[in-house]
Amino acid sequence: MTPFKLTEELVAHIEQLIENRQDGELHTLLEDVHYADVAEIINELDEDQATYLIKLLDSDKTSDVLTELDDDIREAILNNLSAKEIAGELEALDTDDAADIIAELPNEIVQQVISEIEDREHARDIVDLLRYDENSAGGLMAKELVKVNENWTVLTCVKEMRAQAENVTRVHSIYVVDDEGKLKGRLSLKDLLTTATTTHIKDVYIPKVDSVGVNEKPEEVAKIMSKYDLEAIPVVDEIGRLVGRITIDDIVDVIKEEADRDYQMAAGISQGVEADDSIWVLTRARLPWLFLGLVGGVGAAAIMGGFEEMISRHAILFFFTPLIAAMAGNVGVQSSAIIVQGLANDDLKGSVGQRLVKEMLLAALNGLILALVLLFFTWLWKGSFPTAIAISISLIAVIVVAGIIGTFTPIFLHKRGIDPAIATGPFITTSNDIFGILIYFTIAKLILGI
Amino acid sequence: MTPFKLTEELVAHIEQLIENRQDGELHTLLEDVHYADVAEIINELDEDQATYLIKLLDSDKTSDVLTELDDDIREAILNNLSAKEIAGELEALDTDDAADIIAELPNEIVQQVISEIEDREHARDIVDLLRYDENSAGGLMAKELVKVNENWTVLTCVKEMRAQAENVTRVHSIYVVDDEGKLKGRLSLKDLLTTATTTHIKDVYIPKVDSVGVNEKPEEVAKIMSKYDLEAIPVVDEIGRLVGRITIDDIVDVIKEEADRDYQMAAGISQGVEADDSIWVLTRARLPWLFLGLVGGVGAAAIMGGFEEMISRHAILFFFTPLIAAMAGNVGVQSSAIIVQGLANDDLKGSVGQRLVKEMLLAALNGLILALVLLFFTWLWKGSFPTAIAISISLIAVIVVAGIIGTFTPIFLHKRGIDPAIATGPFITTSNDIFGILIYFTIAKLILGI
Repeated sequence: MTPFKLTEELVAHIEQLIENRQDGELHTLLEDVHYADVAEIINELDEDQATYLIKLLDSDKTSDVLTELDDDIREAILNNLSAKEIAGELEALDTDDAADIIAELPNEIVQQVISEIEDREHARDIVDLLRYDENSAGGLMAKELVKVNENWTVLTCVKEMRAQAENVTRVHSIYVVDDEGKLKGRLSLKDLLTTATTTHIKDVYIPKVDSVGVNEKPEEVAKIMSKYDLEAIPVVDEIGRLVGRITIDDIVDVIKEEADRDYQMAAGISQGVEADDSIWVLTRARLPWLFLGLVGGVGAAAIMGGFEEMISRHAILFFFTPLIAAMAGNVGVQSSAIIVQGLANDDLKGSVGQRLVKEMLLAALNGLILALVLLFFTWLWKGSFPTAIAISISLIAVIVVAGIIGTFTPIFLHKRGIDPAIATGPFITTSNDIFGILIYFTIAKLILGI
Repeated sequence: MTPFKLTEELVAHIEQLIENRQDGELHTLLEDVHYADVAEIINELDEDQATYLIKLLDSDKTSDVLTELDDDIREAILNNLSAKEIAGELEALDTDDAADIIAELPNEIVQQVISEIEDREHARDIVDLLRYDENSAGGLMAKELVKVNENWTVLTCVKEMRAQAENVTRVHSIYVVDDEGKLKGRLSLKDLLTTATTTHIKDVYIPKVDSVGVNEKPEEVAKIMSKYDLEAIPVVDEIGRLVGRITIDDIVDVIKEEADRDYQMAAGISQGVEADDSIWVLTRARLPWLFLGLVGGVGAAAIMGGFEEMISRHAILFFFTPLIAAMAGNVGVQSSAIIVQGLANDDLKGSVGQRLVKEMLLAALNGLILALVLLFFTWLWKGSFPTAIAISISLIAVIVVAGIIGTFTPIFLHKRGIDPAIATGPFITTSNDIFGILIYFTIAKLILGI
């Protein structure tokens, strides 16, 4: 396999072919290209070229291409397609992907698109999915699955399965339900192939099957599937009826999005932006956090103003304020990040008190080592041992407090049901800046007098 | 399905049962508990209790439990098992998991353990896997797969497959190889079931199959599998021979580990530590980054010392140094984080020059808004318009430079083949602190005179 590589030459070549309306060449060129790669190409084209290509290619391929496109490009293309054309694309998609696309369409054309879908069962399944919250197992699941009734014989089962499997790209498990549609268990393909055809399903199925409720959060589903190494999980409604299934490829996306979000939050960026978004979008995502930093800085300046009388005799104290603020921020981010990860991975044990004591010891140890280095440096630099001592002792105090705030804040937020990831970034840095400067000057003043 | 919940009562109960040697109760209690959950329980026990439980339960279950345990607990348990007992556990594991465990054993007992494995083919496969770098596709892959020769008929194929499938937990694809063992394509189960038994495989197989080389980096494999929504991918050696396959559950782990690592790096923590590691381990992971911050702070202090003559007339300049340092740090982290993510997701387009110009405009816009707010505040506070202007203009300059450094650094590191994620955390903050303070005082001095 030679991996696909998106090059400027390839894009230019395709643009040329589109301009010259060389449909045959385009077909040949793109025939063996994976839909995910075609999507990458189309992301580079302008709206008209993209629409032209989507209309040219078979809807078997273009429907999958649509699911992989950047949001804005997809929106532009769908705007240029008729309801009938959109319905044609949805026809070729799994219900979950089709529902995701429909959810993006303007309300006024949704009904028209749905009425144009020829396979009425497919249409009904898609409409069913539209009812679920995007941020739930119901919003993630697809209707495509293979299910058999516990009262069937193996023979009926095999026959029915053949028909059902037509619509299911990958059969992970055969789910067994009762007459009410409630999930009872699963069946392995192996067992099915090695059992007499007159046997009833209820005598051979495996009654143990993991499942999730329709209202479960995607992050929880991801946790369950990755913990138990599942490739698909059935979804049941409030009374236990099998309503869909979620496959691991959707979960991989959930995991990646969650990681990206946490990373951005820690970096002080909101809204899930990308590097290629416009300056306005990026400003909206970045400015509020910077503003928070500004408020913190102004707070620190105000505190320093309160200690202004020290400046004539101990100017050096003021030189170290960026260091104090940086250390308070860094320690806060370190300790909160480790708690946030522990919470996300469910592997935080022991009481809050134990955590705080541990972080205090850890911060004190780190603080002591750093303070000794700093003591040595300041003493050498300015020759005043009392000042050097005052700065170093303050540093230890600042680091310990920063560690405690960094540990406590995410635990507190988590207990209140707020995403603790919010605590790792600018919030911790800003509050620790202010506390840090305050503690630093207070202790220095106590040691040095005015 | 009632989800498993690890409670202190459950752990206490199990500890009690172990102490009283109530083997029967332990068996009954844990029989229906998933191995991943048993691992969670064992992580809470002490070494003797854990070893007792592992020896008590069937190796079908305990082998999987071993793969899920915390590293230190697993090491402790394996220390208490004989070579024969360890071999028994490995026997029940897939080759990739078995190889991972063997790689953790002390050298002197590896050979003994391998010689105790009864299934010699299994042993050979495990030894084969030991040769591959842990950080490569070869290090991730398992030997368990279903492969058929293109010269076989469908009938032979089905017979051979039955035998092979015994050892393969989940059959994702049937891989087709030639007489040399080179990967030629794949076969769908559906096709196999619907084709006449005398047909040769070479006439029905699908010649298109994605694969990765043994030396491919795990991150690349993850990218390919998630881009193409694959649940398994075959691995080929340098001359194209099929040597193993990687399944999506291993890739989910790769993606999560990578995300955790990037997150920790951005937070200034190295070595992939967890909240429950010892204070020494945590100090080793955190102290170097704090030390870097200390050096930055000392640098900033030294720079401020160079501007000491300004302190008598413009003390307020010194009050805003934590603000300047914080803004420089925040902007640097924001812009580098967005570039790091773009690089990781391969969706960074356009030239480096374009990026820098965009970030410059973005930073200038954000800087201008923030500077206006700050201007207003400082003017009101101290009543000196020139000082307020000097501080505000410096802030804009600092933000723009911080944005450029934040954008350029990860791109530069990436081009040199260094993981750009290293640039998001303390490195950017520290260097931006120093540059920020220097720029701030230089500009302020130019505007205000001494």
